[in-house]
Amino acid sequence: MYNAEVIQCEGFALLPAFYNGHTHAAMSLLRGYADDMELDKWLREYIWPFEAKLGDKDIEVGSRLAVLEMIKSGTVFFADMYWHREQTMKVVEEMGVRASIGVTIAEQLTSPENMKKNMEFLKAHVGESDRVKLCVMPHSMYTNGEGMLRRCVEIAKAENYRIHTHLSETLSEVEQCQRQFGCTPVELFERVGAIDERFSAAHCVHFTEDDRKRFADAGATAVMCPCSNLKLSSGMPQVTPMIRDGVNLALGTDGASSNNSLDMHQEMKLATLLAKVNGSADSLPAEAALKMATVNVARAFGLANVGEIREGFVADGLLVDLNNERMTPCHDLVSNWVYAADNSSIDSVICNGNFVMRGRHVDGEEDIKEAARACAKRLANA
Amino acid sequence: MYNAEVIQCEGFALLPAFYNGHTHAAMSLLRGYADDMELDKWLREYIWPFEAKLGDKDIEVGSRLAVLEMIKSGTVFFADMYWHREQTMKVVEEMGVRASIGVTIAEQLTSPENMKKNMEFLKAHVGESDRVKLCVMPHSMYTNGEGMLRRCVEIAKAENYRIHTHLSETLSEVEQCQRQFGCTPVELFERVGAIDERFSAAHCVHFTEDDRKRFADAGATAVMCPCSNLKLSSGMPQVTPMIRDGVNLALGTDGASSNNSLDMHQEMKLATLLAKVNGSADSLPAEAALKMATVNVARAFGLANVGEIREGFVADGLLVDLNNERMTPCHDLVSNWVYAADNSSIDSVICNGNFVMRGRHVDGEEDIKEAARACAKRLANA
Repeated sequence: MYNAEVIQCEGFALLPAFYNGHTHAAMSLLRGYADDMELDKWLREYIWPFEAKLGDKDIEVGSRLAVLEMIKSGTVFFADMYWHREQTMKVVEEMGVRASIGVTIAEQLTSPENMKKNMEFLKAHVGESDRVKLCVMPHSMYTNGEGMLRRCVEIAKAENYRIHTHLSETLSEVEQCQRQFGCTPVELFERVGAIDERFSAAHCVHFTEDDRKRFADAGATAVMCPCSNLKLSSGMPQVTPMIRDGVNLALGTDGASSNNSLDMHQEMKLATLLAKVNGSADSLPAEAALKMATVNVARAFGLANVGEIREGFVADGLLVDLNNERMTPCHDLVSNWVYAADNSSIDSVICNGNFVMRGRHVDGEEDIKEAARACAKRLANA
Repeated sequence: MYNAEVIQCEGFALLPAFYNGHTHAAMSLLRGYADDMELDKWLREYIWPFEAKLGDKDIEVGSRLAVLEMIKSGTVFFADMYWHREQTMKVVEEMGVRASIGVTIAEQLTSPENMKKNMEFLKAHVGESDRVKLCVMPHSMYTNGEGMLRRCVEIAKAENYRIHTHLSETLSEVEQCQRQFGCTPVELFERVGAIDERFSAAHCVHFTEDDRKRFADAGATAVMCPCSNLKLSSGMPQVTPMIRDGVNLALGTDGASSNNSLDMHQEMKLATLLAKVNGSADSLPAEAALKMATVNVARAFGLANVGEIREGFVADGLLVDLNNERMTPCHDLVSNWVYAADNSSIDSVICNGNFVMRGRHVDGEEDIKEAARACAKRLANA
């Protein structure tokens, strides 16, 4: 016997909740702050100066807005690479979702003091819980030397953490790696011992065929962020070749400053559309696309018994309104969900057996948005 | 003095409503009926046999569902190419939106009796009103001979109609045209006198540079349907080359059987993402993308004084909730609307000065969905 609530679900479908394989939650404060410009100018003139002003409290406010947006669009887990991680961990605990929280390692951007703090944090497993796990996240090969990447791998293996990084996002990153290390970014991470089934990387836009095979052989995960890759003109995501070569392919939104939403449904539809136009109309059918936004992410971050609606699995799920106009008529539920629906059909969201949204209501929603508006305004004018 | 209602809009932005440049409304009944297969099999084994069963009443039911979905996602005008047009015209009148309704000409699919009826219909301007206009819609070059295309142009010019067609959607269409007529589909339509500023064509995926220049010089409109073009693997929409060569570029959803929604917001975001990945990060900025989904469509179909929020213009608009989480924070309204929002932020929809949705409520919504479910079920089992 369980201490369980029996709920009336007539007229709803119970579908797996989304897992977001790559984001920077607190960057929701920078949504729409700068668009429609090339990456270098975008980073140097807008994003980095804004980020330099972010304090602990701002990260909390931005993370809260991001988690709210994710819950409202059916996402109950996210892998987060950012700074002031304690704030984001607190928000995740309080709002009832799950996360893999990065201890972000960027040798070239971090003071020795903070680097020391990061390593101590990892050794102590600070703040971990059932729903919140730490993850070693070297930012990228262009912000860390080879020695630091090796240290990341050592501590991850010693402390049983997974590793996540930015990888082969732009052509210039790949070219820099070839100049500096004489190999592709994938080969560099392999050289330092990072690439196995506990390794996942965001973007993976500019993989060679050999890179794909190394990932597939190792059981590593490529987390595509199709919307961000297109918007920043980083390159066309290789959906079809990745699947053909057997890579575990997962999806993420990237941050709200380059997307500009945190909507996994949109990533899922976009991934299958790109697979088809760069393959054929039968590439990446609806059900396979749904897996990329759910179980494939869970596999990447070592979440057990979640990501599917199945007896004995943990209850992470969405109640989807079958009476929504975009779910009507219903010749095929999965097709309607993947190709036709939008988030307006998500009535309720369940994470770890508890409602985090019910009848489209999230506790504290108005305060979260009000705080985010005030915070973003202050920072923009600071 | 006007007999006007003064409404309280604090907390809302008034944004232009969407205009859908190409759809087949009643195909909403086939949403999700067949996906993930190549075009020929999809058409011959699924779509055409289902369509053969559609009667007058079914077209009315399917059109009503489509208009409901369009209203809920902020669209107040659509260009419709389908059969049993009287039913769709009636629905448009009753539901308060606008449409350019095609008299669809497909010589190879239509009985001589129906062809005669079509021509009489056009001469009599049957059923036209302020919000509903007829349009001559030869289905394509592969369903009409050159003589019939000429007749379409003659009657359009004589009766002051616009012309709309499917054009260069697939590579096989272009190859067939080269074999049969020794020219591209654009050159064929030019040869019969169709291409001027009153001509618009859906898809335009496989244009040559010369085709684009002919369109630009003539002031004709290309109506891209990016989601459908990707999903059917027809080809990559040429957003950047079309803009560079000065073509009036507009957007449409195509039918719900190949999209599988009728969501102009999605087409708008997809168009700007494809422009960027196939161009650069500053290609098709947010405001230009918004125009492709609004005024550029209005221009194509000859709708005057609509498509922008401007004094003296007809009131077609959306009340967008600035308190929606995806509109928060608001560094830039247009960026948030184009890149971050989804339809959940649309509170109310105004067409021709009247509310067609208010507080997300559309009159008769439940009956429309119930009728569509029953109709689709009967047809699928028939």
